[in-house]
Amino acid sequence: MKKSIVVSTSSTKFSALAFKEDLAENIKKVADLGFDGVELAVRDPKYLEVEKIINLMKECNLEVPAIGTGQAYGEEGLSFSDPNEIIRKMAVERINDQIMFASNFDAQVIIGLIRGKINESVSQAEAEEWTIDCLRKCAELAKEYNIRLTLEPVNRYESNFINTIVEGIEFIQRVGVTNLGLLIDTFHMNIEEVSIEDSIIQAKDYITHVHFADSNRWAPGCGHLDFKKIIKTLKKIDYQGYVSAEILPLPNPDAAARITAETLNKI
Amino acid sequence: MKKSIVVSTSSTKFSALAFKEDLAENIKKVADLGFDGVELAVRDPKYLEVEKIINLMKECNLEVPAIGTGQAYGEEGLSFSDPNEIIRKMAVERINDQIMFASNFDAQVIIGLIRGKINESVSQAEAEEWTIDCLRKCAELAKEYNIRLTLEPVNRYESNFINTIVEGIEFIQRVGVTNLGLLIDTFHMNIEEVSIEDSIIQAKDYITHVHFADSNRWAPGCGHLDFKKIIKTLKKIDYQGYVSAEILPLPNPDAAARITAETLNKI
Repeated sequence: MKKSIVVSTSSTKFSALAFKEDLAENIKKVADLGFDGVELAVRDPKYLEVEKIINLMKECNLEVPAIGTGQAYGEEGLSFSDPNEIIRKMAVERINDQIMFASNFDAQVIIGLIRGKINESVSQAEAEEWTIDCLRKCAELAKEYNIRLTLEPVNRYESNFINTIVEGIEFIQRVGVTNLGLLIDTFHMNIEEVSIEDSIIQAKDYITHVHFADSNRWAPGCGHLDFKKIIKTLKKIDYQGYVSAEILPLPNPDAAARITAETLNKI
Repeated sequence: MKKSIVVSTSSTKFSALAFKEDLAENIKKVADLGFDGVELAVRDPKYLEVEKIINLMKECNLEVPAIGTGQAYGEEGLSFSDPNEIIRKMAVERINDQIMFASNFDAQVIIGLIRGKINESVSQAEAEEWTIDCLRKCAELAKEYNIRLTLEPVNRYESNFINTIVEGIEFIQRVGVTNLGLLIDTFHMNIEEVSIEDSIIQAKDYITHVHFADSNRWAPGCGHLDFKKIIKTLKKIDYQGYVSAEILPLPNPDAAARITAETLNKI
């Protein structure tokens, strides 16, 4: 199992990210800590110096397992479930840009908060249909680039649909494309799942990416989740992908990254 | 340790309550299930038939350990930390009405969501001072009625201050009155505490009320919390009060109450 940590390519108000400022310096720190990859959280790839980032990763011998895309919802309100067709179109275009960016690294593109929240003025069925439609459009472009999307269930407070692993699996089945997998996040699972381990086993044919954060969203080891047991379960289902720390930068970004590396190395 | 369950005296949009409709019928059900008490969630006691409720409790041989007050925030926006002085005054008046209502049962009055969320336009220090001021005013009236208030830390998504047990204890110390205790809630603790058991031990001199809900806010036994261990810890600190189920009415209200009773009887 390879390990990575989320780094944002620009400053952001979304807080569950280690290492927010000065990309080059932070990526070198990640490499020094022994991580195998960096998950990049990107608001809009249009403003990135892509060649520079590619070279930086090569220099540091780091992979990019996934691209986080939630900032476009958090900062701009772009969403797959918005009643406004234009907003949905902008969200699809943004994810398409992320897919093209991701193709430089063979990274998965995360479909997390970009699905939005279902507006009280519309029915759940209608909002889900919009979301499915957006996902199919993105999956089509992703296929051309040989890129996978990965759908992340998030806890009830962050969205009002696709909260549990089972809901994630059912949604993936409804979308019905071959390049959409499941991203499981231990922080969200602690709130939503009856049993974290049973849910991992149930999702074994779908999981393509894993987020690690402890129960309080601090680095693994700072809360009460049993990461030994979680990793054992991931090995049991023969998970071959990355575990990627998406954590609060607490008590400070450097310490959060260091504790993550230490905890994962210990297990 | 005595056990109770939350019942709302009127229908509400706040969902973590079992048994929302038809008070008399529901209170009888609670008694039949072997609970010792009912925690009443009240939006505004002004509209209650108080004598009827008192008689109902006597008939059913049930105590009322606590009065929940969050609906006044959820439905009307009354809050101790609101920048608008009128809103804060209305919140204090509402809690004062709750104190007088509570005095019929020797119930504690819960200070949970009524503290509100700190508005982005004001400093945390200022909002905390307003909250402390409101709490002191209410504690003064409560003292006249020999009633205790109990402050509930809630998770980061429900308020942006007093989230952890330590923050709750520090806040109680700052308020500096003798009739303000701490309410711990296992659902919130699962998200906020490094260790639920260690936090209980740390809070032993402050805890006056306990909410039980499992990790997913369903009835105890429906998630992954270890209630055996939690109850063992509460016994270790010689907690003599109530454990009160504040849970989602899922899969339906009756089943939620029944599962709660079964789980607690088993332990």
